[in-house]
Amino acid sequence: VLLRFKDSITALDGEKHDVIHRKAEVNAAVSAELFKMLEQEKIPTHFLRLKEATLMQVRRLRMIPVEVVCRNIAAGKLVKSYPFFKHGEKLKTPLVEFFLKDDKRHDPLLSEEHMIASGLASKEEVKKLKMITLKVNSVLRKFMLKRGLLLVDFKIEVGRDHRGTLRVGDELNIDSMRIWDKKTGEVKDKDIYRKGGRLDEVARTYYQSYKLILGRDFK
Amino acid sequence: VLLRFKDSITALDGEKHDVIHRKAEVNAAVSAELFKMLEQEKIPTHFLRLKEATLMQVRRLRMIPVEVVCRNIAAGKLVKSYPFFKHGEKLKTPLVEFFLKDDKRHDPLLSEEHMIASGLASKEEVKKLKMITLKVNSVLRKFMLKRGLLLVDFKIEVGRDHRGTLRVGDELNIDSMRIWDKKTGEVKDKDIYRKGGRLDEVARTYYQSYKLILGRDFK
Repeated sequence: VLLRFKDSITALDGEKHDVIHRKAEVNAAVSAELFKMLEQEKIPTHFLRLKEATLMQVRRLRMIPVEVVCRNIAAGKLVKSYPFFKHGEKLKTPLVEFFLKDDKRHDPLLSEEHMIASGLASKEEVKKLKMITLKVNSVLRKFMLKRGLLLVDFKIEVGRDHRGTLRVGDELNIDSMRIWDKKTGEVKDKDIYRKGGRLDEVARTYYQSYKLILGRDFK
Repeated sequence: VLLRFKDSITALDGEKHDVIHRKAEVNAAVSAELFKMLEQEKIPTHFLRLKEATLMQVRRLRMIPVEVVCRNIAAGKLVKSYPFFKHGEKLKTPLVEFFLKDDKRHDPLLSEEHMIASGLASKEEVKKLKMITLKVNSVLRKFMLKRGLLLVDFKIEVGRDHRGTLRVGDELNIDSMRIWDKKTGEVKDKDIYRKGGRLDEVARTYYQSYKLILGRDFK
């Protein structure tokens, strides 16, 4: 299967949308780099190879229509949804959440019991999903820290390959995570866009994060 | 501690409110009956005695600000929140859910991880909460079935006594559960009110359910 990355950027369940020049290249390159790293760490993904700058070859998966979120620091929806998490507060242990992909219903939270009762995943798969997510978190967090970045949270989507093995699918880049500069706390991800940043600022953030993550200038 | 029952009835996070003649007496009597039954089944509650027709003496608890819901048949919020549960569908196993008591935020769902990460309950307590809820369900379901009623779902609130033991608190009556006539499927609970039933119909439902549950006419 071939996956084409795009320059479009959206937020607020698609209400807000724009185009960021060459964002597709940044996201494809970052995704490829991170998927490669996960594979090296024995975490199965759908990644095969980057065929062109914005075209990724991946294994076919039957996706579970769920966003799996893992948080190290409270931010975003967690802070909006509950009164007891403060923005920027470090969580004692990483927090894993499941959200149904359903824009109309604004991606409602699913408990583990909901996942199982709805037939979205078996009990065994829910356990594996959490294990995979925590492993991705551990690997990604160390990777970012070496580059001076705090991994606040990230989102993955997971599917089953032809053997039924769970693999990380979709994409993994600064559209799907929050990363903050370790020293200054500066936001280095899509939140710049969500919070109404100018499109040239948004673009600069993507190019900067490319450089930080891949260790070379974005040309 | 003394608990005074009232004739007021509310729905939609307090937006809708009315008075049902002698509802307090019905709810106090039903709560007392059901709490007594739970105590007999070795489930700790806050119930001590009914001092007057609408006044209940209970143990002091430090309440966990969470509504624990248990469902046998899909209805209400579960059906509204997710596309894969159909109204009236029997669930394979009882489903336990936690909701934060927070009207302003419309009682958001909490996963077990949220319960623990927020400090609302320890991991051990969450496990016990689920065990207590499932035991209440098992006992209450059988009780209702003998009276020709299907227990669709119910809500309990739980607190810690001076020893830290978890006990079922608050109230347990047809305000806090869905019960349907086993044969006709007729609604015998507060949904009559939620769905805009006339107040005399609502009152009649409360008196009828009193009779079904307590086995004697409401006089």
